Amino acid sequence: MNKDVALIVGGGPGISASCARLFAKNGMHVGIAARTPDKPVLQDLEKTHGVRRYACDASEPADVGVLFRDVVRDLGVPTLVVHNIDGRVPGIFRKGIAEADATMAFETLRNSAFSAFLVGQQAARLMRENMPDANGTKGTIIFTNASAALKGFPTSGAFAMACQAKSGLAQSMARELMPQGIHVANVPIDAAIGWTQEDGARAHRLAGTTVDDNMADPDHIAETYLQLHRQHRSTWAFEIVLRPWVEKW
Amino acid sequence: MNKDVALIVGGGPGISASCARLFAKNGMHVGIAARTPDKPVLQDLEKTHGVRRYACDASEPADVGVLFRDVVRDLGVPTLVVHNIDGRVPGIFRKGIAEADATMAFETLRNSAFSAFLVGQQAARLMRENMPDANGTKGTIIFTNASAALKGFPTSGAFAMACQAKSGLAQSMARELMPQGIHVANVPIDAAIGWTQEDGARAHRLAGTTVDDNMADPDHIAETYLQLHRQHRSTWAFEIVLRPWVEKW
Amino acid sequence: MNKDVALIVGGGPGISASCARLFAKNGMHVGIAARTPDKPVLQDLEKTHGVRRYACDASEPADVGVLFRDVVRDLGVPTLVVHNIDGRVPGIFRKGIAEADATMAFETLRNSAFSAFLVGQQAARLMRENMPDANGTKGTIIFTNASAALKGFPTSGAFAMACQAKSGLAQSMARELMPQGIHVANVPIDAAIGWTQEDGARAHRLAGTTVDDNMADPDHIAETYLQLHRQHRSTWAFEIVLRPWVEKW
Amino acid sequence: MNKDVALIVGGGPGISASCARLFAKNGMHVGIAARTPDKPVLQDLEKTHGVRRYACDASEPADVGVLFRDVVRDLGVPTLVVHNIDGRVPGIFRKGIAEADATMAFETLRNSAFSAFLVGQQAARLMRENMPDANGTKGTIIFTNASAALKGFPTSGAFAMACQAKSGLAQSMARELMPQGIHVANVPIDAAIGWTQEDGARAHRLAGTTVDDNMADPDHIAETYLQLHRQHRSTWAFEIVLRPWVEKW
Repeated sequence: MNKDVALIVGGGPGISASCARLFAKNGMHVGIAARTPDKPVLQDLEKTHGVRRYACDASEPADVGVLFRDVVRDLGVPTLVVHNIDGRVPGIFRKGIAEADATMAFETLRNSAFSAFLVGQQAARLMRENMPDANGTKGTIIFTNASAALKGFPTSGAFAMACQAKSGLAQSMARELMPQGIHVANVPIDAAIGWTQEDGARAHRLAGTTVDDNMADPDHIAETYLQLHRQHRSTWAFEIVLRPWVEKW
Repeated sequence: MNKDVALIVGGGPGISASCARLFAKNGMHVGIAARTPDKPVLQDLEKTHGVRRYACDASEPADVGVLFRDVVRDLGVPTLVVHNIDGRVPGIFRKGIAEADATMAFETLRNSAFSAFLVGQQAARLMRENMPDANGTKGTIIFTNASAALKGFPTSGAFAMACQAKSGLAQSMARELMPQGIHVANVPIDAAIGWTQEDGARAHRLAGTTVDDNMADPDHIAETYLQLHRQHRSTWAFEIVLRPWVEKW
Repeated sequence: MNKDVALIVGGGPGISASCARLFAKNGMHVGIAARTPDKPVLQDLEKTHGVRRYACDASEPADVGVLFRDVVRDLGVPTLVVHNIDGRVPGIFRKGIAEADATMAFETLRNSAFSAFLVGQQAARLMRENMPDANGTKGTIIFTNASAALKGFPTSGAFAMACQAKSGLAQSMARELMPQGIHVANVPIDAAIGWTQEDGARAHRLAGTTVDDNMADPDHIAETYLQLHRQHRSTWAFEIVLRPWVEKW
Repeated sequence: MNKDVALIVGGGPGISASCARLFAKNGMHVGIAARTPDKPVLQDLEKTHGVRRYACDASEPADVGVLFRDVVRDLGVPTLVVHNIDGRVPGIFRKGIAEADATMAFETLRNSAFSAFLVGQQAARLMRENMPDANGTKGTIIFTNASAALKGFPTSGAFAMACQAKSGLAQSMARELMPQGIHVANVPIDAAIGWTQEDGARAHRLAGTTVDDNMADPDHIAETYLQLHRQHRSTWAFEIVLRPWVEKW
């Protein structure tokens, strides 16, 4: 069996880094794409886990095309693609509909939902040519999403648009691609993303406090992504909402 | 009591025209905005029902700003705004995710969801200064939506994005604006939009067939919009899905 | 056109009484069924609006059979049936799953969901023989529901079961009966049921306070029911959630 | 760390047997409860995997009380409880609302939803006294559910009631018990339950056909249940819908 090739689009220190580490530990070739691939967290991933870094503005069609071409050349055709971009322009946070800047709202929609379209499209084009693996899977496409995908909160119109757009895309892709052997999943994280257990423990040790787990640990999110990729096609899950035990919903 | 001022954004011969006629018959000042306000159906509405026509590309922030300024000048501050734009670029219809043109997908998102944001924003800014009417309503904002808002269908990724984005926006606006006295509603029409009863009857008479009603009659959709506008704020509905009796769902 | 015959099952002073008054004012023959049909609010409805009273335990198959037989005999075949029973045994309120009394949980399920089944079944049997009215409707069956139909709240397991059971029944009946010309609707009221405007105003006048409308006014709920009954079958709504403008959701 | 104690309520040859085998292989003490615990599939599980068998009508409060008492005595306090009862009385299948037998509808509701209440209640009472395990979990309660939990299909009113009742219960229990350290999950299987891969392969070999996987393999469903039990409480999933890759939804 050929090795899995995983591409993570979005280069944050939380879910993306946890996925990169877990996927590498499980024997996958791993690439990670970010607007600024030189940031320390990504350089570390290269050193410690052999993760390949790519520069990419995922909301630009040409950039996304080049990204997938380079990944195929360097690592092979992806079998697992994670779209992990929040996309909010900072100035759009907690702005009422009357006050929100329209340009920022538009950028949020483009960064988040349109980049998901571009990444999903390239993944679909390549994966459908793959041979099914032992679980009958030609490839897995996972969209990280947020609680705004489940419920549009006040003073959050632009983000609600972006998250629910991403859900709509994921649903459409799932209904279209699953019968072709490609597993598509939407994973709204209904919580703040927290420390990994390890980082959290260290932070708490330094601060002299006790570890808490009322935020979503990105290492555990990554585990769910790996489980999704390894689900047998007789029993695929499309949507999994992850939330900490103490979260109100 | 002052007269209601209704603004319909989107100038098709179906729901928009039915709304314009019904709102005018109920004594409202009515404006209708379209990219091409000179088309015959809109000229007719002006002649028969005194509907004021406005040229507007609703996906352009500047255009939408001018539109609302002109409506206020000509008719008064709106108390009922209907966003009735489908937004699909024709070339995007029934295209698989791998085949869909990315630029067209982007345009669809912009035409539909982003224009809803712009129109909703201007409406919110103006309406919150209104005095509540007899039902406690400062204004009503209605988004026409489609079945893709409820379910992302295959080969329809771009439209699913746009429709669910619109739902997310509407939810966020509802939670934010309803406690301020502005009624926000999302109305997915789970059906093809059909003839009005009158037009359908004429068409069938000419064709020698019998009238059917397995498509959504835009005159009846308009009635629901008027009922939504007149709901007392003690019992507001946010979402109403309308579908013909014979529709599968 | 024959007169509408409305049967309201459940005899409370809120929604049931408001429906009875509104339906009678609109020229319908109205019957109301309750476990204790002699309570003053129902006697008043008989005097003021000619409403016919029936004794019925709606969770008993035999009782429900007799009820519909008697209504047909007295008023004619129903064209509008409202199931308006909450069904909670008082002792089940705010009980954690570990503490809740199992017998009370069972009674709640039987009072609410099973009675809805029995009433819906009798209505369906009769209505499908009706001639369609001017809107193409052979009859309308409306289930009043609660916010627990939308979301299972903590310490409310038995009621969540009952409400979501009712929603499941309503969905199944809608998909089955709407193509046969019978309009089925589920109406979760996401709020405390309040005073009617009139009663509220009087109460507030007596108390020297101002009228509020942060609870759902049953007179306005009744209006929505009447609108549902009069919807043309080209555009039927299945579910309408009603909530006051200030409600959190 | 103490051994996990798993109790499976419902004794079919599909999901229940697959769970029993998988849980036993993973070192758990396993009990299985059924109305007829003497059927061959359960006797085999005892022989091959040391599964303990219990006679129990799960819709009878007294029976369920005795079951949990005996399991605690024999195996210890449960840390994983699976409610895996469909509950449909055969005569209720594909019956229109007008034709369905009311007594059978009632039995279906009692077998499925009320038994879920009784089992969930006993599990909650015991689990909240447990110490959290390494993942912060005092216990996991899983309800197997069906596609009728997501959508009420025509000629299926009684089953839709039962399934959605179970969803409502699960939601309420999750919101109540998760902050107490008990993981509650609802798992609608949106498909016919199929052969295990092994049994399917054998059947196909005997029949000279090729293996298919368009039904949900109970062995893979069991894997998801085990993953749910082992999720860290920083990232719990409440609902996972499982469906085969080729299923329409």
